[in-house]
Amino acid sequence: MTSRFRHAALIGKYQAQGMRPLLEEIAHLLTRRGLEVSIEVDTALNTGLTGYPMLTPDELGQHCDLAIVVGGDGTMLGIARTLARYGVPMVGINQGRLGFITDIPVARVTQALRAMLAGDYEEEHRAMLDGRVVRGGEAIYTAVAMNDVVLRSGTTSMLELRVEVDGQFVANFRADGLIVSSPTGSTAYALSAGGPILHPGVAGWLMVPIAPHMLSNRPIVLPDAGEISIEIVSAREPSVNFDMQSLASLLHGDKILVKRSEHRVRFLHPRGWNYYATLRHKLHWNEGVVPGDGGH
Amino acid sequence: MTSRFRHAALIGKYQAQGMRPLLEEIAHLLTRRGLEVSIEVDTALNTGLTGYPMLTPDELGQHCDLAIVVGGDGTMLGIARTLARYGVPMVGINQGRLGFITDIPVARVTQALRAMLAGDYEEEHRAMLDGRVVRGGEAIYTAVAMNDVVLRSGTTSMLELRVEVDGQFVANFRADGLIVSSPTGSTAYALSAGGPILHPGVAGWLMVPIAPHMLSNRPIVLPDAGEISIEIVSAREPSVNFDMQSLASLLHGDKILVKRSEHRVRFLHPRGWNYYATLRHKLHWNEGVVPGDGGH
Amino acid sequence: MTSRFRHAALIGKYQAQGMRPLLEEIAHLLTRRGLEVSIEVDTALNTGLTGYPMLTPDELGQHCDLAIVVGGDGTMLGIARTLARYGVPMVGINQGRLGFITDIPVARVTQALRAMLAGDYEEEHRAMLDGRVVRGGEAIYTAVAMNDVVLRSGTTSMLELRVEVDGQFVANFRADGLIVSSPTGSTAYALSAGGPILHPGVAGWLMVPIAPHMLSNRPIVLPDAGEISIEIVSAREPSVNFDMQSLASLLHGDKILVKRSEHRVRFLHPRGWNYYATLRHKLHWNEGVVPGDGGH
Amino acid sequence: MTSRFRHAALIGKYQAQGMRPLLEEIAHLLTRRGLEVSIEVDTALNTGLTGYPMLTPDELGQHCDLAIVVGGDGTMLGIARTLARYGVPMVGINQGRLGFITDIPVARVTQALRAMLAGDYEEEHRAMLDGRVVRGGEAIYTAVAMNDVVLRSGTTSMLELRVEVDGQFVANFRADGLIVSSPTGSTAYALSAGGPILHPGVAGWLMVPIAPHMLSNRPIVLPDAGEISIEIVSAREPSVNFDMQSLASLLHGDKILVKRSEHRVRFLHPRGWNYYATLRHKLHWNEGVVPGDGGH
Repeated sequence: MTSRFRHAALIGKYQAQGMRPLLEEIAHLLTRRGLEVSIEVDTALNTGLTGYPMLTPDELGQHCDLAIVVGGDGTMLGIARTLARYGVPMVGINQGRLGFITDIPVARVTQALRAMLAGDYEEEHRAMLDGRVVRGGEAIYTAVAMNDVVLRSGTTSMLELRVEVDGQFVANFRADGLIVSSPTGSTAYALSAGGPILHPGVAGWLMVPIAPHMLSNRPIVLPDAGEISIEIVSAREPSVNFDMQSLASLLHGDKILVKRSEHRVRFLHPRGWNYYATLRHKLHWNEGVVPGDGGH
Repeated sequence: MTSRFRHAALIGKYQAQGMRPLLEEIAHLLTRRGLEVSIEVDTALNTGLTGYPMLTPDELGQHCDLAIVVGGDGTMLGIARTLARYGVPMVGINQGRLGFITDIPVARVTQALRAMLAGDYEEEHRAMLDGRVVRGGEAIYTAVAMNDVVLRSGTTSMLELRVEVDGQFVANFRADGLIVSSPTGSTAYALSAGGPILHPGVAGWLMVPIAPHMLSNRPIVLPDAGEISIEIVSAREPSVNFDMQSLASLLHGDKILVKRSEHRVRFLHPRGWNYYATLRHKLHWNEGVVPGDGGH
Repeated sequence: MTSRFRHAALIGKYQAQGMRPLLEEIAHLLTRRGLEVSIEVDTALNTGLTGYPMLTPDELGQHCDLAIVVGGDGTMLGIARTLARYGVPMVGINQGRLGFITDIPVARVTQALRAMLAGDYEEEHRAMLDGRVVRGGEAIYTAVAMNDVVLRSGTTSMLELRVEVDGQFVANFRADGLIVSSPTGSTAYALSAGGPILHPGVAGWLMVPIAPHMLSNRPIVLPDAGEISIEIVSAREPSVNFDMQSLASLLHGDKILVKRSEHRVRFLHPRGWNYYATLRHKLHWNEGVVPGDGGH
Repeated sequence: MTSRFRHAALIGKYQAQGMRPLLEEIAHLLTRRGLEVSIEVDTALNTGLTGYPMLTPDELGQHCDLAIVVGGDGTMLGIARTLARYGVPMVGINQGRLGFITDIPVARVTQALRAMLAGDYEEEHRAMLDGRVVRGGEAIYTAVAMNDVVLRSGTTSMLELRVEVDGQFVANFRADGLIVSSPTGSTAYALSAGGPILHPGVAGWLMVPIAPHMLSNRPIVLPDAGEISIEIVSAREPSVNFDMQSLASLLHGDKILVKRSEHRVRFLHPRGWNYYATLRHKLHWNEGVVPGDGGH
């Protein structure tokens, strides 16, 4: 049976133990199925896995029509922003504990990939955040985030931020920080900071103040169609993070603008994949009772 | 200048003091502007405001092209479900503290209505929840809710509920209760139970377990396109509320199905109205610092 | 080696499978060590475990100097209030998942009891709540609670409660309910409702409003030396629970008074027992990361 | 009528407008009542208020038997740690919005001080945190905090901390930071981070992880009799704050030890003062409903 795909990119968390044989096995499986295979350059150099073309993430985006990402959610986060620009669909394989977005365990990789190469998969799209830092009317930094944009003070002092959406004043937030999260990011840092879970099918962003001064400054879900503007009113050494990309030298008056990226992440899941099953697994909903079971 | 509207419905919180003169003043203003005016029958009977046709909510829906609702958010909640079925746009006037959805203070009623009758307003739509209670495959109760659908146990014992979305199993929730809220309801009961604020422009429902047994059973925002099914697995004397409409005699195995109503509520606001301004006002975001301001 | 104890009470969760042989095994162990053994009457009748005197909980309190409780936290909760009146120390053995207060697994029962009978144990005390319902100046109901006193409305309508401590007005709470919890109860219902964990060594009560109307009505920890008075200002069919004992027919103006019981629960734990180990186990603190590990 | 006190210290928030005439008025009132008056040296130099001895905080502690602090909670926080060492009772006068611990409004200062000088007051004590930073077995920094001890990472990366109490392992916390707060500090930063309110009469500390990775890492109240040890397992540029005193150059393996200070803060309040009234005022409990009042 022929593969629906022609050229696969292989990206691995090269620091992890046992990565090389695992990538080799996957590469063999892909070539046996008739796919061309290219390896992300850092993955190749660090694992010593030769015999396949080594391409940069951008080159993988230009040439491949499928990406196999082996590692954890962080590995996926690192490559997905780039590949999304080229519309390359991604499959996430997890060596250790399953992730939210790397949901195929190593033990099932052969079986899962066979079916998926034959076209038996579910495709799911994730919105990304397109961020710009504007100073004196000019964009001095741009970045795309799959999880979140996070503003923080460099020290224990508080941030004061002025938030507008589509030019409408929302509020001045005084807090340790402010998170603007995609649905994908809602189960990452935003959850720790008290946010709700946002199903990836909801066209919204989640805005979560971290340790806000006002108790009524609750998390708020905004439509993803608008542009969020966050102005730094006061802070000591404020910084902003777009996923793991950081800009530390922000000034008062700088504005961080966030809108929906024109690109979306394309994930391929094995047939029968289910967002809620991932939630149950990751949040231990399957397990017994947490608080004491007496008297209630 | 002629009114854009032809026939106004007048609905008042008739238990409130000073309602009759206020309604009279509004009725005069409307008739002076050339509108036909009809009064909701209970409002008329209880305030003794005669001289205008008395119509039932459904008759108001059939005949009117504008509704003026005078009272609090509860008054609006009581009439909006019915008028939404007929697509009648509503204007909310608040006698006391401004509400989330009754946002014109009495002091500005004349000025606001003049402009709005002339077509100078902003229209905003709110999604409603369409609920059904299914027993043995048959719908035994149907209701529409503007704020929320709330399942609860009749006593201090816990509810156990099995939730599915579009046939996919989400989770078994053990909790005091479960709220499915619209964006409109997100600033009502769901907020007290720990939910986030959902902007009315977000096409989602908010599901908030009340005092859940599992600490990781966090509020979750779901796309409003699907159908939520909540099955009663175990509970003592469980009941369900659709806004203020209650069904108390639920049985194990009963399912509550919730989907988006085909009708939407149409609100008219004075030009310049702003959802965020309402939030700031209602949640006291304008006010000073809440926690102590020393040492941080 | 002689036992430090003379006469053991045996109480079991008689509905549980395999309870009879387990109780028999424990009874043998105790008699072999020279202890007199009496069995709680319901446990004896329901498991058919004969051959030992059957005593009521009060009789056990009067005659025994040690109690072995086999079941879950609920079993312990059911008997501890009574035995605490007589100062009988208790040992909790758990058949299934370990509880907060039944912390010896069945697999280690023989080994643990041997050491404990020889005096090798740690003793820990837990404060209990002494509750009274006062109507028209007279106490119409009194009860002791080990976990919590919970006020609730019988329907979805809200409670309004006026709280005083030692005659000082604290606040009017509008909420679904109000929990006054001991440190022991802080890991039970109060935790679900958003309360903190209270170490048993803290001489305080935890007051947690359930789904409070005011977002700033946060949980509050009060000294356990005072008397808390909770007056029912308004509610439909309000009820109060003292652990599992319920009084449903409360009226407006009724006051629930709560103070520290003069009796304390005495728990015996195996040497090396550690409150924090129980927390880590029950709240899954040992386990991996809960929210997504990418990007943060 | 003679004053119960002999020598008053005067401390003011000298940056605030109108501070000099206010301090002068208070100084006159005190001298007219026969008290000796000394002024804190920075207050004197910055307001130009001469004619009274200028003393350092330590000298004030040695010579005075009463301190009048004029400013906000931050002003009190700045001086209270020092004066507590000498057992000097403090009175807090607030120029602006009342604070949690500066509870006499300027408008009532004359009336309040007259009564208090005559002995008509209520005395209240607050526990303080005694902190040490230990590196390689040696204390490299010691500080006392009235509100809280706060550990944080210098960047957006997470802290990992190992917490022990009296040598017993509590947990490894992975979070943005960790707060150990006194009851006084429970209404400051800890409240923003999700902690409960701790009544000053409770002999406990509050430990609140900031944005913890594990959802079950809830705030915990510990007895204040023990010693809390917090070891830095991993972090980038971690720092610790004792109220406003900061130590930024922490290393992995450093331990922060926290125990109850042998000194307590002594506050004098006007007769009739009430902790709960302060809570109601500061947390806006007196005000109307926060979430929407419709439908619930």
